[in-house]
Amino acid sequence: MKSLTRRDLLGLAGIAAGSWAFSSCVREQWASPTAKKPHLPWDFARLDPDIAADRAYQDYYQGHCMYGVFKSIVGQLAEQPGEPYKSFPFDMMKYGAGGVAGWGSLCGGLNGGAAVIGLFAATQDEARLLTHELFRWYEATALPIYVPKKPKLAVEMPKSVSNSVLCHVSVSSWCKVSGHHAFGKEHNERCARLTADTAKMTVQILDGSLQGQFAGTHTLSPETKSCKSCHARGGELENSLGEMSCTACHFKGGLMHPNL
Amino acid sequence: MKSLTRRDLLGLAGIAAGSWAFSSCVREQWASPTAKKPHLPWDFARLDPDIAADRAYQDYYQGHCMYGVFKSIVGQLAEQPGEPYKSFPFDMMKYGAGGVAGWGSLCGGLNGGAAVIGLFAATQDEARLLTHELFRWYEATALPIYVPKKPKLAVEMPKSVSNSVLCHVSVSSWCKVSGHHAFGKEHNERCARLTADTAKMTVQILDGSLQGQFAGTHTLSPETKSCKSCHARGGELENSLGEMSCTACHFKGGLMHPNL
Repeated sequence: MKSLTRRDLLGLAGIAAGSWAFSSCVREQWASPTAKKPHLPWDFARLDPDIAADRAYQDYYQGHCMYGVFKSIVGQLAEQPGEPYKSFPFDMMKYGAGGVAGWGSLCGGLNGGAAVIGLFAATQDEARLLTHELFRWYEATALPIYVPKKPKLAVEMPKSVSNSVLCHVSVSSWCKVSGHHAFGKEHNERCARLTADTAKMTVQILDGSLQGQFAGTHTLSPETKSCKSCHARGGELENSLGEMSCTACHFKGGLMHPNL
Repeated sequence: MKSLTRRDLLGLAGIAAGSWAFSSCVREQWASPTAKKPHLPWDFARLDPDIAADRAYQDYYQGHCMYGVFKSIVGQLAEQPGEPYKSFPFDMMKYGAGGVAGWGSLCGGLNGGAAVIGLFAATQDEARLLTHELFRWYEATALPIYVPKKPKLAVEMPKSVSNSVLCHVSVSSWCKVSGHHAFGKEHNERCARLTADTAKMTVQILDGSLQGQFAGTHTLSPETKSCKSCHARGGELENSLGEMSCTACHFKGGLMHPNL
């Protein structure tokens, strides 16, 4: 049996705008044992970004941010069509919570989103392009946007712009704006909603790519572009690796503690 | 058939100190279809840390840092005993390269190591404890230590202490110490060797835990402990989340650009 390509799947699903459900045809094809394949890319199909957001919000409360984004997307495919998605050890993704084991490094939502993109992007170049868009959207957007229909914690939720993909910076920024603590139930609810936003954006970006309609809308800031002209690949110094916003750490008087 | 526990496997392997190979008995048990299980923890068995390092060095040149650490460990189990390991979509792990798609966030070696720990740790508490040890070792150790038997690039390799789990900081620190560029072949070779070191340490930590002999030897620095007394959970401010060393960013005059 000829294996299905990504575009075949899109065609088979017979998806019109606003229609996101799998057709039974696709389910049968994918559920066959021959469809099992560890090699990438795995087949992606159109998912409703709002359903991904709803599921990510719930999944966050089961396994935190990285798990929430990953499970809300790949978990839908594990239900239908089934394999190879359902053999994935989803619980592994709990490791990314709080910037990996509470270290505050990369936001777990983004770590999960990048892993999802890593599963489905057709090439490494495509994966980098889509990840850039997801990460730059996160840096520049006032989050969380998502409002759950049945919130675990019904509060007026303050938004903040992180200017960083790092959990530590993102959390501190939100604490400053909101006046809430970093370990309170309000912050937990904030991260659940942010997880929903990140899952939704990941689906939208992948969907755009699958349809050949992806166009990145978030670019490097002028400040970061200027820094990179000296420090990044090909620059006079070429002593720095990264795409993160430079201004989160290297400007505004630096990060010196005020008492020192 | 009764499924095997982690300790059963250790016993079945009949491993004495210095003997790391799987017994055929273990291979047969694990290769059976009933051994396939997406739920965690997956069974870990003793692996030679030096073989993991050798493989990680080679794997780095196939898929970079995160892939290198993950594949060098889980990939051994995919060869024998086979499932569930061999169904894992290893190529997904290429997403972590250069702190995820070149963003310079979490070092890909650590992202891979934490994912491995997430697969095999018996509980979330254990996973956090083991990840703390891996990350604190990385922050405080002059790396790379590993010297390949057949180097891809035969150079005298400078070592640096990153004082950070972030790729961006780790790379810049090494560039400063070594005088090499961030995108040169020397830096690539440095990261291949660092990937080997991280795979070896991940195996050693998991092995210690599997044998009930794990004892963390790396602790928070006095400076970070002092910062956390105010800023972390239960502190007066409680406005910060993280375990990263504070001094990498918040001390030594901050990170203000010298020309500003």
